Amino acid sequence: MTAPQSVGIVAPQTAHFAEPLPLRSGGTLAGYDLVYETYGTLNADRSNAVLVCHALSGSHHVAGVYADEPQNVGWWDNLVGPGKPLDTRKFFVIGVNNLGGCNGSAGPCALNPATGRPWGADFPFVTVEDWVDAQARLADRLGIARFAAVMGGSLGGMQALSWTLQYPERVGHAAVIASAPKLTAQNIAFNEVARQAILSDPDFHGGHYYEHGVVPARGLKLARMVGHITYLSDDAMAEKFGRSLRHGKAVYSYDVEFEIESYLRYQGDKFAGHFDANTYLLTTKALDYFDPAFSHGGDLTAALARAQADFLVVSFTTDWRFSPARSREIAYALMHNGRRVSYTEIDCPAGHDSFLLDDQQYHAVLTAWFDRIEV
Amino acid sequence: MTAPQSVGIVAPQTAHFAEPLPLRSGGTLAGYDLVYETYGTLNADRSNAVLVCHALSGSHHVAGVYADEPQNVGWWDNLVGPGKPLDTRKFFVIGVNNLGGCNGSAGPCALNPATGRPWGADFPFVTVEDWVDAQARLADRLGIARFAAVMGGSLGGMQALSWTLQYPERVGHAAVIASAPKLTAQNIAFNEVARQAILSDPDFHGGHYYEHGVVPARGLKLARMVGHITYLSDDAMAEKFGRSLRHGKAVYSYDVEFEIESYLRYQGDKFAGHFDANTYLLTTKALDYFDPAFSHGGDLTAALARAQADFLVVSFTTDWRFSPARSREIAYALMHNGRRVSYTEIDCPAGHDSFLLDDQQYHAVLTAWFDRIEV
Repeated sequence: MTAPQSVGIVAPQTAHFAEPLPLRSGGTLAGYDLVYETYGTLNADRSNAVLVCHALSGSHHVAGVYADEPQNVGWWDNLVGPGKPLDTRKFFVIGVNNLGGCNGSAGPCALNPATGRPWGADFPFVTVEDWVDAQARLADRLGIARFAAVMGGSLGGMQALSWTLQYPERVGHAAVIASAPKLTAQNIAFNEVARQAILSDPDFHGGHYYEHGVVPARGLKLARMVGHITYLSDDAMAEKFGRSLRHGKAVYSYDVEFEIESYLRYQGDKFAGHFDANTYLLTTKALDYFDPAFSHGGDLTAALARAQADFLVVSFTTDWRFSPARSREIAYALMHNGRRVSYTEIDCPAGHDSFLLDDQQYHAVLTAWFDRIEV
Repeated sequence: MTAPQSVGIVAPQTAHFAEPLPLRSGGTLAGYDLVYETYGTLNADRSNAVLVCHALSGSHHVAGVYADEPQNVGWWDNLVGPGKPLDTRKFFVIGVNNLGGCNGSAGPCALNPATGRPWGADFPFVTVEDWVDAQARLADRLGIARFAAVMGGSLGGMQALSWTLQYPERVGHAAVIASAPKLTAQNIAFNEVARQAILSDPDFHGGHYYEHGVVPARGLKLARMVGHITYLSDDAMAEKFGRSLRHGKAVYSYDVEFEIESYLRYQGDKFAGHFDANTYLLTTKALDYFDPAFSHGGDLTAALARAQADFLVVSFTTDWRFSPARSREIAYALMHNGRRVSYTEIDCPAGHDSFLLDDQQYHAVLTAWFDRIEV
């Protein structure tokens, strides 16, 4: 086996869909673009395709780099490539920017064909289920009747799970990582703080800030800061920053005193500089709404009865956003339905963000699981 | 024993101090008011005084009601009164609004004698140690050489602990409840989000918003919302709100959909309507700075060696802001110094806020502990 390599230089593609897409929030999206990337080669049987679903701040840029942006490495590059756990010598891997996103697919900062202006707050609410429908149409376009696997972490895991319910016959395997069958009240509460930060920013202008030449950067920064706290474990923060003082002692100022303050501000500013606030709002709502058991009276086992895939469910010991208990709910409900489920709890200190890291045990599990998949 | 009763109608008093108070942040506070309340009667020996220290959003109004505000019940009224755990038939109880507060004591929204205008951002940074110094001067004024007990929850517990280090001979007993010997990086991170919400509010005006006839209500609301999440346990939120939908189904709007959203917004608005943003900033910084072990190379046992009091340390199982592990750090360090320490971990579902509730086991512990104190 050769050393794991990057997929190298990649380029996004755009697919336009003219057929209106009915949405759970009511109404339809009349014609839309989806931006996506692919890595590896679709085999003659068209049986080796793997769909990678992104989470809140992700995109279609899963692996590799762009020719003109060699620093812009895909968000799951450590996982996808030749010799990597999701091996592109075997699999044809697809990443899609979800509807409502801000990386080229139809979304608030893209142009509304009906007006020629950015959609802004007029872009409709989209759900995990809508995203899956749109991804299925892209699969149709690419001639993929059935995915060897659909995978995702966090909100991406919700999409993988939803795929097995909406299109059970089209998913051979599903990897649901650091995810949950629905948000808790606390999860929703954190999302609500993030939303209020954006909505109450005077530069939000009711979601039509593009026309005012501003962005609600203060609100988006705050949203990201509070989100970031929930992505890291208490221990990881203690390990990484502790109570380290920038000046070695208290200086009694609202400038950075503790290193953790600097880190959070930096993360917030960086995010606010490139992400779209309306997309952030829409995506937190999609998270809040996801609840496949709702229409089954809260019975998750009943809700997952439609699934036919073989599953890998992965959680991380220090993830307090979507704790291992949430993953076990999914695993148990699948097992009660007689599904083949591999469940693993990875002892990684990094909290929710662990799913993005290349923890050795975690990647070993993924490698073994993907190795087993016949294409 | 008669049924527990309220202390009834109370009235705040104001003490003016002309002697400058040196502050840890440098400089001095030249003359200041402290507003306080007392309940019960100081005995002839002046040996039955108990100081109750308040936390972030508390004040001197610990118990009872005001004649003109019968709904304004003291924040620890369930604990302080005739026949209550801190029995005012036996003890003389004092509540003080801390320096930097917004309830009458010298603070950002009080007048700066030097300018005749509100202090605003010019009010100096104050620390737990400064508060204790100011409280000690009030004790002098009231003729109290030694407190039978000093007690507090959360940030109030930090003051009780600091009393035993700054004035060891003046504290007979100390109750340190739902507290911690210092904040973690995660604790500081949440405070930093709250501060950035306030500091970045356009209505903050560099802390001199009083002169602009506005208050940074958006920022303060966000600060309180994020704080509130950390005061409640995940389970308590799940129990109280779960995923209850206001309209029984998703309506796809940024108005309230889930009941938890309504609760948080209400709490945020209510708080922003009466609390001062500069006080919130100063108080979160006082929390961040508290670290008695810092000057002892991080050795908490060495730091607490000066204490002479008998201690009660109380934690709550579901408190993830200041978890039981943080209280055990205090208890162990005290025990290593040969102090008498009662440590109890109360199984209460309400999270950090448990210290404000009248949980039966919790109050039974407090009752027994105060009963043992001879005055």
